[in-house]
Amino acid sequence: MKNIFIITLLLLFVSCHSEKEKQQPTFGIVIHGGAGTILKENMSDEMEKAYLKKLTEAITTGHAILKVGGTSQDAVEKTIHVMENSPLFNSGKGAVLTANETIALDASFMDGKTLNSGAIAGVKHVKNPISAAIKVMHNSPHVLLSGEGADQFAAEQNLETVPESYFITQRRIKALRRVQELETNKKTTRHSSDQLFYDNQRYGTVGCVALDLNGNLAAGTSTGGMTNKKWGRIGDAPIIGAGTYANNSSCGVSATGWGEFFIRSVVAHDIAALVEYKSLSVKEASKQVLQKVEDLGGDGGVVVMDAYGNVSMEFNTPGMYRAHMNSDGKLTVRIYDNE
Amino acid sequence: MKNIFIITLLLLFVSCHSEKEKQQPTFGIVIHGGAGTILKENMSDEMEKAYLKKLTEAITTGHAILKVGGTSQDAVEKTIHVMENSPLFNSGKGAVLTANETIALDASFMDGKTLNSGAIAGVKHVKNPISAAIKVMHNSPHVLLSGEGADQFAAEQNLETVPESYFITQRRIKALRRVQELETNKKTTRHSSDQLFYDNQRYGTVGCVALDLNGNLAAGTSTGGMTNKKWGRIGDAPIIGAGTYANNSSCGVSATGWGEFFIRSVVAHDIAALVEYKSLSVKEASKQVLQKVEDLGGDGGVVVMDAYGNVSMEFNTPGMYRAHMNSDGKLTVRIYDNE
Repeated sequence: MKNIFIITLLLLFVSCHSEKEKQQPTFGIVIHGGAGTILKENMSDEMEKAYLKKLTEAITTGHAILKVGGTSQDAVEKTIHVMENSPLFNSGKGAVLTANETIALDASFMDGKTLNSGAIAGVKHVKNPISAAIKVMHNSPHVLLSGEGADQFAAEQNLETVPESYFITQRRIKALRRVQELETNKKTTRHSSDQLFYDNQRYGTVGCVALDLNGNLAAGTSTGGMTNKKWGRIGDAPIIGAGTYANNSSCGVSATGWGEFFIRSVVAHDIAALVEYKSLSVKEASKQVLQKVEDLGGDGGVVVMDAYGNVSMEFNTPGMYRAHMNSDGKLTVRIYDNE
Repeated sequence: MKNIFIITLLLLFVSCHSEKEKQQPTFGIVIHGGAGTILKENMSDEMEKAYLKKLTEAITTGHAILKVGGTSQDAVEKTIHVMENSPLFNSGKGAVLTANETIALDASFMDGKTLNSGAIAGVKHVKNPISAAIKVMHNSPHVLLSGEGADQFAAEQNLETVPESYFITQRRIKALRRVQELETNKKTTRHSSDQLFYDNQRYGTVGCVALDLNGNLAAGTSTGGMTNKKWGRIGDAPIIGAGTYANNSSCGVSATGWGEFFIRSVVAHDIAALVEYKSLSVKEASKQVLQKVEDLGGDGGVVVMDAYGNVSMEFNTPGMYRAHMNSDGKLTVRIYDNE
């Protein structure tokens, strides 16, 4: 009888303790800077260092905000600013060029607590598209604004605007020329260096998912789209459910990849649906949905975080610029596969 | 022993028979012409007859195609043409006007067998936007095209183009003026006739889901958007996953309603996810997702069909123009709630 009493007390202690651990406030942040055929053998040491440094700067910016009780919205916005302001990534400053040598930036943001969302597509003058998406969410009755109208809205919101020339870099002009030449001559063969280069012009995007100390998730994505895009093409980045999704009852997702396949697979919402309706882990849900994308012929990657801080950084390309950091301050920054 | 033998034979017969019934080829089509505060007391007999007649013409057009073995794509396209060519609905000819008294048409299409999709947003010159969406799917590497580029693509595809004046009707100019006056004076009070009128300017859309004799689902949606829309606003109609979704392994969906809430709720894909992952019926899944939309403060409706021809025409507004017809040729055409 005495033994049973002691065992009961022990069980009670263990159960209370684990309950307490579960309830302990946690926070975390995960980012990507685009997926694609990113191979170590094609990367100079200098470039590799530059990417690792910028990813670290981005994630520590958001982490510092979360650590002192800042919101997941603020963390996502400020983290993405770091990547948008860098020429290394296909978003903001480093955006790729359309077929007409113009700029067309897309971004979206979603708040996991309220499901409020904002997005912009095809803007040319907003220095930080993610901030325009957040302004659409807070200060307009709409979710998605496009083209000149979206630029006009951003200007009315007193967001920093820049001339289109701010975004046009020599690196991207060269890339556009090469893509146009490859498309004209249809010279690309599978696995050739031309093809690898060509493929990589489809994938650049930056994104972030954050969980704050109040248990609120937020997700954001920002991109310059696809090199040589035509006809006002819009990819998955500004599409809630495809490139971005956040819901405290499932998870936050930001995607990067061949946008058309990500729209058709409704990638971000499908991951959240598998987490919510099938109780899959964020890792397993991400794997299953990327497998569906692959079955259709597409590829790319996602970063996902649930309301417990569990994280997934899955991709089916050779590499994805990515980083993760949670409450314990342990930093993970990676570029290639199998690291 | 003899009894058991007879019972086994009977069970075998019943099981084979029901299997046979399940496998019997079936087809069906379901459409909507927009949801909103559509009340019998506000509708003239003449208008009611006009709506019922046009809905019947639309659905029998698609039904005739399916009956002779035509594809669900063809049925959806030709059915939507009937509604796009009528001034009664907010799509094509009857499209509402933007704040600048211009036209900005959106449409999307999805094929349930291949998950191929196409969509256009903000076009001004395509007579039948649903056909432009289908052309994007077949003849471009993209899913979503927008603005002038989308119009240019449609022209390159030899689709019928019209001057913007084709779409501008006196009825819609009057509606725009009234909405602008109401917005300027903020005179609307809840449940007032002004408010009812105002609310209804948000909801017009047409859509169709069809199942063909090969068991393939397709869904399409077409709209002029929201009266007095600004800043290049894009609603849910051209968003795969929000306004339109089709997947043979779950169902086809076309939505109509307050687009912003439908984007945030990823309505079309969420219904499909509940059908696929939670084995809900299309009716139950539609109800649950519309409840989520209502909880956020939005409203509207959906038409849904699964690969067995089961249908749902749910809405949480006072009315939705809708019709349904399946293999047995029984026609259902409705406008109001509780009919």
